[in-house]
Amino acid sequence: MTEFNVNFLPHEKEVSVKGGESLIRAAMSAGVHINASCGGEGVCGKCRVLVESGEVDGGVSEKLNRVDIDKGYRLACLSKVKSDLTIRIPVESEIDASVLNKMATPRQTARIKERNLEDLKEQGLFVPPVEQIYLELPQPTKIDNMADVPRIVNALRTKHNEHRLEFDMSVIRKIPDVLRAQDFKVTVTIARPVRSEGKNHVINIEPGNTTDHNYAIAIDIGTTTVYGQMIDLITGEVLAQHGDFNAQISYGEDVISRIVYAEKEGGLETLNEKVVGTINKVIDKIVKRSEVNPDEISTITLAGNTTMTQLFLNVNPRYIRRAPYVPAATLYPQVKAFRMGLNLPHHVTALVYPQVSSYVGGDIVAGVMGSGMGHDEELTLYMDIGTNAEIVIGNKDWLVCAACSAGPAFEGGGIKMGMRAAKGAIEDFSIDPITLEPMNITIGDVRPKGICGSGLITIVATMFEMGIINNSGKFNRDLETPRIREADGVYEYVLAWEDVSGVDRDIVLSEIDIDNLIRAKGAMYSGCMTLLKEVGMSIADLDRIILAGGFGSFVDLEKCMVIGLLPEIDHEKVTFIGNGSLLGARMSSLTNRIRSDVGDTLARMTNFEFSETASYMDNYIAALFLPHTDLNLFPKLEKRLAERQKINI
Amino acid sequence: MTEFNVNFLPHEKEVSVKGGESLIRAAMSAGVHINASCGGEGVCGKCRVLVESGEVDGGVSEKLNRVDIDKGYRLACLSKVKSDLTIRIPVESEIDASVLNKMATPRQTARIKERNLEDLKEQGLFVPPVEQIYLELPQPTKIDNMADVPRIVNALRTKHNEHRLEFDMSVIRKIPDVLRAQDFKVTVTIARPVRSEGKNHVINIEPGNTTDHNYAIAIDIGTTTVYGQMIDLITGEVLAQHGDFNAQISYGEDVISRIVYAEKEGGLETLNEKVVGTINKVIDKIVKRSEVNPDEISTITLAGNTTMTQLFLNVNPRYIRRAPYVPAATLYPQVKAFRMGLNLPHHVTALVYPQVSSYVGGDIVAGVMGSGMGHDEELTLYMDIGTNAEIVIGNKDWLVCAACSAGPAFEGGGIKMGMRAAKGAIEDFSIDPITLEPMNITIGDVRPKGICGSGLITIVATMFEMGIINNSGKFNRDLETPRIREADGVYEYVLAWEDVSGVDRDIVLSEIDIDNLIRAKGAMYSGCMTLLKEVGMSIADLDRIILAGGFGSFVDLEKCMVIGLLPEIDHEKVTFIGNGSLLGARMSSLTNRIRSDVGDTLARMTNFEFSETASYMDNYIAALFLPHTDLNLFPKLEKRLAERQKINI
Repeated sequence: MTEFNVNFLPHEKEVSVKGGESLIRAAMSAGVHINASCGGEGVCGKCRVLVESGEVDGGVSEKLNRVDIDKGYRLACLSKVKSDLTIRIPVESEIDASVLNKMATPRQTARIKERNLEDLKEQGLFVPPVEQIYLELPQPTKIDNMADVPRIVNALRTKHNEHRLEFDMSVIRKIPDVLRAQDFKVTVTIARPVRSEGKNHVINIEPGNTTDHNYAIAIDIGTTTVYGQMIDLITGEVLAQHGDFNAQISYGEDVISRIVYAEKEGGLETLNEKVVGTINKVIDKIVKRSEVNPDEISTITLAGNTTMTQLFLNVNPRYIRRAPYVPAATLYPQVKAFRMGLNLPHHVTALVYPQVSSYVGGDIVAGVMGSGMGHDEELTLYMDIGTNAEIVIGNKDWLVCAACSAGPAFEGGGIKMGMRAAKGAIEDFSIDPITLEPMNITIGDVRPKGICGSGLITIVATMFEMGIINNSGKFNRDLETPRIREADGVYEYVLAWEDVSGVDRDIVLSEIDIDNLIRAKGAMYSGCMTLLKEVGMSIADLDRIILAGGFGSFVDLEKCMVIGLLPEIDHEKVTFIGNGSLLGARMSSLTNRIRSDVGDTLARMTNFEFSETASYMDNYIAALFLPHTDLNLFPKLEKRLAERQKINI
Repeated sequence: MTEFNVNFLPHEKEVSVKGGESLIRAAMSAGVHINASCGGEGVCGKCRVLVESGEVDGGVSEKLNRVDIDKGYRLACLSKVKSDLTIRIPVESEIDASVLNKMATPRQTARIKERNLEDLKEQGLFVPPVEQIYLELPQPTKIDNMADVPRIVNALRTKHNEHRLEFDMSVIRKIPDVLRAQDFKVTVTIARPVRSEGKNHVINIEPGNTTDHNYAIAIDIGTTTVYGQMIDLITGEVLAQHGDFNAQISYGEDVISRIVYAEKEGGLETLNEKVVGTINKVIDKIVKRSEVNPDEISTITLAGNTTMTQLFLNVNPRYIRRAPYVPAATLYPQVKAFRMGLNLPHHVTALVYPQVSSYVGGDIVAGVMGSGMGHDEELTLYMDIGTNAEIVIGNKDWLVCAACSAGPAFEGGGIKMGMRAAKGAIEDFSIDPITLEPMNITIGDVRPKGICGSGLITIVATMFEMGIINNSGKFNRDLETPRIREADGVYEYVLAWEDVSGVDRDIVLSEIDIDNLIRAKGAMYSGCMTLLKEVGMSIADLDRIILAGGFGSFVDLEKCMVIGLLPEIDHEKVTFIGNGSLLGARMSSLTNRIRSDVGDTLARMTNFEFSETASYMDNYIAALFLPHTDLNLFPKLEKRLAERQKINI
């Protein structure tokens, strides 16, 4: 799609956006504030801008009078970029413009990074854990009447250097007829051992040459959502992807309530059936979408947190939630997928990612493997921010990890008008420091219904930098605007009045909400500090940050650093890998090296229970400020705050 | 039981027998002929003997007159030994006595030999493939909250030097609750790998210390009969044993007819169900008899011929009966017993003995392993004579083997009045060289119903040595006795007239029967010669013979050598191991060394297909005489025949 330049005046901020993008999103990208509270449906009519040059689609509304329209005024939220543009934002005074100019920082999202398939190939690592080999066997004669299985073994040994072979009984049962179906020309499927000293399992045999079809499935078993991918093991490509809500949800939102349910009579069996059922739905969908013949699927890799893994494997999770929080196992054996209830052919092998502890599970191990952080020199902070939040710090020499009781604030939980990142959620925000009028950007550009995690961070960060809230998260009581008010003894800011909101009431952000966010980010940050301290290092030693989880792709990095969720670091050094669990499961399907390395990586991952780590609470208390009691940890922010104070003087 | 000496006159042959033994069996043991055709029910009244000193129980019959009874005459078949005795056999003349004296050879049966458990213990080989280890684990604390499985692994590694451990999923599922049932005191059951480089599978976990109970089952899957034993892995003892007819019998008597049935729609499934059902019946019986708790059974080892093994494992045996006679596999993986349909707890591992070829199966490999012949210096001939007949020759350096198309003559098949070794079968025989009157000994001492394998051999051998039949198996046409007659153009000898037989007709042995026996023994003998020739050796090089199979315990070795079934060898060098298949299965349960050695032994067993071995037919033709065209191969017999000729002159 064509890109166009949009130049915003009087700030003289230019941004390059795709054709069809709305002007209001272009402005937000440029760090230009436009009053806009209705989320982009043209309801509030506040986002009047003057198109000085170039052309837009739409933007005309009954909220604008004839004269203005003729002059070139449009509603920014309704205008779509269709050429290079010069857009003037009406401001009250030159001071406004100057302030805005200084205050606004362009949105900074993390680079999305995936391990590159080509890199794997170059490194010789693109060796899937399940391979197919085509054999043209000599037919038995009176002189050479060796049994069928040793005939195959012989050919594999002498012509393909394959050793330590073991045949599944189900394969042996097929062999006599399959060998004779196409004159002893067959394709065998070999599942590699997870550990090098293990056996090479011959898991399937088909007549003729079928080596051009070999597929794998990767599954992330999330507490909320189960994602699956169909992977072509010849090309390495993802052929289809699908996500569906984990049907266990009706038995509890989080892992603890699932465990409680699992302890009831028949509870474990029910939860097992539900999650297996969901996985089967996902498999069904990706099989249909990719048009893959299920008989050509060789392996499935699954990753999930410790509770999800145990529920999937039908292992009682009772002791996960009881001190001292002991999971049943860390490593699980490779098994047959159908024995776990999966609707896959009997030959398909299933491997689940191992766990570190009760609260650092296979999803995190998968993320670590998928991101490759355990093989690099750089000191890396890996954060998976979801229903549960986990941190891993380390490099190729050592790894420490822990789970944080961050609470669900980042997913909109515990926030009065919080919501998941769905249509109508305020995901981006700006505020006019003079008028205190908001600029709300919602997912889907509809009337706002609530605030999602990335919106919450941006709102709080922006208000803090503007001095609208202080470093304890309290509103400045001196500000004169109807948008800041006291309701039931709690101060709150009205992001959208009822008449422009998508729900039947005002959309607000309260000091209680802000407090919850501070606790959540404080937990994460103090988690990092504690882990680093335990290994004798500090935040300053971090070389890079890898973000994972549904939370991270849209969130503004600068804002995360403003509230003290992330340590201040060069934005270029922050990458986002999306669903780390799914990524790791996919990488394991593509290269057996990862499968076999998991055990070593796991052995290097030292788990900390923060409840048992004395320094954690001190670090936590210190982090319960914006951004932190120790502003020196955030030098860039410190400098900006100093500049702001100069302007305010 | 007390032993008594019985001295038979005028032969002056003495024998020591158990109290209660019948006089007629005592005479047979001593090599003393007494006319007796009715099998010992006192019907023919011909076995009159005079008790000169000592006392017998019974023996008085209406067949004897008052005067004779008063003189001390008794019927030998009805008299039981109850003291030392002097017994006079009435003979027609002194010549009779002299001839009898020379002709009769005392019965020589093979020494029954089993590998000694004490020997195994001394050699450090009594290490069952499944072991139990009792663990007292440290309980998890806040500081040490390692997961359950690694906690067990740690203890096994550090305190018991156990490595390469893999846990079954079913065990992992039990672990959390079992660990906490008795304060982290548990017993784990470890199944050793068949090959040393394999994994140690943890297959069960129980609360507390259960190491004093550990059991194994050994099964011989015979075409006709399934035998099972319950083995105590602590003491090595057999606690219970049971045999039952293979329920497949109604689908065919031999392996070929079973294969034919298996090729029909649903046939394989039916035969699989039948044999699994029989094995389950046997298991049920030995579990009840031994009063073993099935949960304490750890492993089951099964051995059977190639067809039985494939039918048990549900592997299509179609190609076993089609040239070039290819079995599906030789080695099969260790599996879970319940997955094969066996009524055993889920943790029980099952291992089947491997096959050499389509007609040298796991039963033979088991016999070779059980007998230990593959570890000894001596050149050994192993013969398993049953529904199918197999030969193995070799020692610790090499082994050659083959199946013989001997036919079922040794089990009474193809013989007009042939029968299995059951009640009423003539199992031993002697003949008066002058009168040509028979002495029939039947199983159960009842009226004769037919002739079993050992009886057939003894009858033919005796008649041959007496000159009643010639070396082609034809009756001497010059002999005058109503017992030798021509019926429907075929000469036959009447062993028992209808009035004393247990069936509604005469019991006879015809020249066709003799011819069938000659073909059967010729096949076996020429098999030995052919195998030996293939390795550049001869019959004279054999150091010992091991007999296996239902056939061998009662058969008279001397008679086997007279007909040329066995090479002439010192009787002391012939041993009988009974059911070699069951023996091997039991030995495998007692010592993992045997399990792991099987693969090597198998690799050393060179199979010959006689249909493809040019010299076999020549050897076979040469063996179609009594004992053989080349009498020099039987020097002892040659000498006796020469002596007989002197007497006859």
